[in-house]
Amino acid sequence: MAILQDKKVLVTSAGDYMGPAIVELFRQEGARLSCDYGGSYSDDELRALLASGLPDIVVANLAAPPQTAALENIEDQDWRLLFDKLVDPLMRLVRALSGPMKERGRGKIIAVTSAAPLRGIPHASAYCAARGAQNSFLRAAGLELAKYNVQVNAIAQNYVRNSTYYPDDLLEKEAFQRHLQQLVPGKKVAEGAETAQLALYLAGPHCTHMVGQILPLAGGWTTTTG
Amino acid sequence: MAILQDKKVLVTSAGDYMGPAIVELFRQEGARLSCDYGGSYSDDELRALLASGLPDIVVANLAAPPQTAALENIEDQDWRLLFDKLVDPLMRLVRALSGPMKERGRGKIIAVTSAAPLRGIPHASAYCAARGAQNSFLRAAGLELAKYNVQVNAIAQNYVRNSTYYPDDLLEKEAFQRHLQQLVPGKKVAEGAETAQLALYLAGPHCTHMVGQILPLAGGWTTTTG
Amino acid sequence: MAILQDKKVLVTSAGDYMGPAIVELFRQEGARLSCDYGGSYSDDELRALLASGLPDIVVANLAAPPQTAALENIEDQDWRLLFDKLVDPLMRLVRALSGPMKERGRGKIIAVTSAAPLRGIPHASAYCAARGAQNSFLRAAGLELAKYNVQVNAIAQNYVRNSTYYPDDLLEKEAFQRHLQQLVPGKKVAEGAETAQLALYLAGPHCTHMVGQILPLAGGWTTTTG
Amino acid sequence: MAILQDKKVLVTSAGDYMGPAIVELFRQEGARLSCDYGGSYSDDELRALLASGLPDIVVANLAAPPQTAALENIEDQDWRLLFDKLVDPLMRLVRALSGPMKERGRGKIIAVTSAAPLRGIPHASAYCAARGAQNSFLRAAGLELAKYNVQVNAIAQNYVRNSTYYPDDLLEKEAFQRHLQQLVPGKKVAEGAETAQLALYLAGPHCTHMVGQILPLAGGWTTTTG
Repeated sequence: MAILQDKKVLVTSAGDYMGPAIVELFRQEGARLSCDYGGSYSDDELRALLASGLPDIVVANLAAPPQTAALENIEDQDWRLLFDKLVDPLMRLVRALSGPMKERGRGKIIAVTSAAPLRGIPHASAYCAARGAQNSFLRAAGLELAKYNVQVNAIAQNYVRNSTYYPDDLLEKEAFQRHLQQLVPGKKVAEGAETAQLALYLAGPHCTHMVGQILPLAGGWTTTTG
Repeated sequence: MAILQDKKVLVTSAGDYMGPAIVELFRQEGARLSCDYGGSYSDDELRALLASGLPDIVVANLAAPPQTAALENIEDQDWRLLFDKLVDPLMRLVRALSGPMKERGRGKIIAVTSAAPLRGIPHASAYCAARGAQNSFLRAAGLELAKYNVQVNAIAQNYVRNSTYYPDDLLEKEAFQRHLQQLVPGKKVAEGAETAQLALYLAGPHCTHMVGQILPLAGGWTTTTG
Repeated sequence: MAILQDKKVLVTSAGDYMGPAIVELFRQEGARLSCDYGGSYSDDELRALLASGLPDIVVANLAAPPQTAALENIEDQDWRLLFDKLVDPLMRLVRALSGPMKERGRGKIIAVTSAAPLRGIPHASAYCAARGAQNSFLRAAGLELAKYNVQVNAIAQNYVRNSTYYPDDLLEKEAFQRHLQQLVPGKKVAEGAETAQLALYLAGPHCTHMVGQILPLAGGWTTTTG
Repeated sequence: MAILQDKKVLVTSAGDYMGPAIVELFRQEGARLSCDYGGSYSDDELRALLASGLPDIVVANLAAPPQTAALENIEDQDWRLLFDKLVDPLMRLVRALSGPMKERGRGKIIAVTSAAPLRGIPHASAYCAARGAQNSFLRAAGLELAKYNVQVNAIAQNYVRNSTYYPDDLLEKEAFQRHLQQLVPGKKVAEGAETAQLALYLAGPHCTHMVGQILPLAGGWTTTTG
């Protein structure tokens, strides 16, 4: 039997970041998928999104366009955009889900975040701040909901192929390949299927003891959960 | 000779959180203190604050009133307040300082943050998110500025006496004392002087190799930098 | 198709600790299992164990009888036993496997260790030392072998049912149940199947980007990889 | 007044590793030093070492000659040497001190270990294992002794000048300088005085709330306590 047979799964921003890879695998594994294709995840939108019933599993997959800036050049609007796209919607989503999932006594929230804040990346401090807010929020949420049989965890990835942060044209650049050789023990960028498999593990019925965990998936670029 | 003799030190929100304890010790150690007593740390305010010259050392001491809420009860305005008081001002402060400190080839930024996001606290997920954003931002900033001889670090404390989060009337409660016995290996709340001493270590002229570090100071409540 | 169809898997100390749970699930998933039932894992024994061909996957499942002692009461022979049973055999096993797996360009080593050293446990400092040696060794080994397409990771568990550390009679004690309520966010001991599922994820063909990772599986007792 | 005025301090292996730098600073700060110049730290030796009275502060400074080896080339005697020189003596030292320090209700143990196991270093897995055993042992010991007003902490350093691991002739090599530029955010090796200053902070009378902590001091090479 497929692992997610008849499980109702909501994937946010399903067309971006790790959405496509997760949707593909979860569909193969029998999930009844409900895909959302982006928005502000306002309370109204979330009500609409959840109107058809509480999902068994929610994949909180949020992304924002990549940014690079030295500290002194961070722009207010770029900073704001990261929190608007990554941090506030995640809080609203977990807020909307936690009451009903607690009441039902069952549920899973799997967030795709980033390993960037676990190690820290120069010229990406704004991104690290926003992803760090996500990771810290999820850790606390995971501990809070554990006793209600609701599992919240994060996949803190880096060097995984996706159209948002590691598009094909970047991967082909020689400078990027040199960077990989120097900084990533695995010497490669992983396929999106690797993230999907980790999400599948977290989504499985036998995964109840892993809670509030920020799981690095980064080819050894970082191995601690910082 | 006093350790901070003639060092120009700016302490933000000097009347709140760990401000008073740090001001007292730094004054004893010869610092020329410039104290700010709160505000929004807008770019304009920061310009005024730095108009009298670039400090050698900045203590980024920011606090917001304590909040407790189950995930489903987080209020938008409470969430916003935490980011407005803790996260955005820290970014603006580091942004304003990093250019001039890099150019001068010397500087220290010591932030007082929290250990809460390192371990995670149920019913304090909003606070964990905001303090986690701070810690992650500071780690990245510390790595970015290290090669310019500018050291950025954070004191991630918990269970330290201060008027904002651990006021005297809380410490006297029996329920709180039971909580301490159960959860804190050191079985006590530390005096503010402990934070001040760690800040003094970080402020010292011989501390250049510690950068981007989030230092737990929490009586063993957490020992990892999560 | 079963996930481990036709994969040759060696499980060490298959009758102890997490051996039985892992063997059961891996068999269901089609693995060709080779079980070892304990010993010293000397170089000679390892040669015999590997004589029938290099496994695709090795589960390094090692355990030693539980010990508790205040620091001043640690006995030399108890200390020695922990390193003899947990640390040295793990090194010899990885040493024996790494050359052939590198040469083949493929392999997986999945160790079952402990979350104890990630947080630290009073009166279990000897155990923490030995499990910490394992975790640190595996992290380094994982980074070293990553570029050869050999993945080394550890499951750092706590509060999982097993006959060695969490036998049924312990779990039934009232004092233990109180301890669970106070210290474990999930408020329960997990079944061995949870460890087996995490091992299965790590054993899967699509798991190549997770390397050198010490994965806490502890019901939220610890969430950082310390 | 000097910070360590009249404090009785024992420094182990005072001629090796960080001994000379710590001795120099602690002497300036008024400590009454008792230096040991190496040995096996057997129980008999420890009894002799402590016969003249229980120190206020013990600096557990242990080192072993550097080793490098691929996993498949680890020699039993090299592996054994690391545990004989770094791990077992540390246990015996803490074991000998913990009873008397608990009884007295006061004491400090400051270990100089390594940041290597916090991040993991290929071809140094044996060293990572031994230093990881130290760090994990100290974390547990620190939590166990905290309530007796005995503080145990570790300085987990890397890229600090010392005759054992970073001698002058290594630092002058061009290959090493390139390595520094690529992997260490601070782009330099620190002087031994930096370690001594951190040890001084930990030795100070106002440092009681930091316990069981493994403090990275590594120029940003690692910032998490993994």
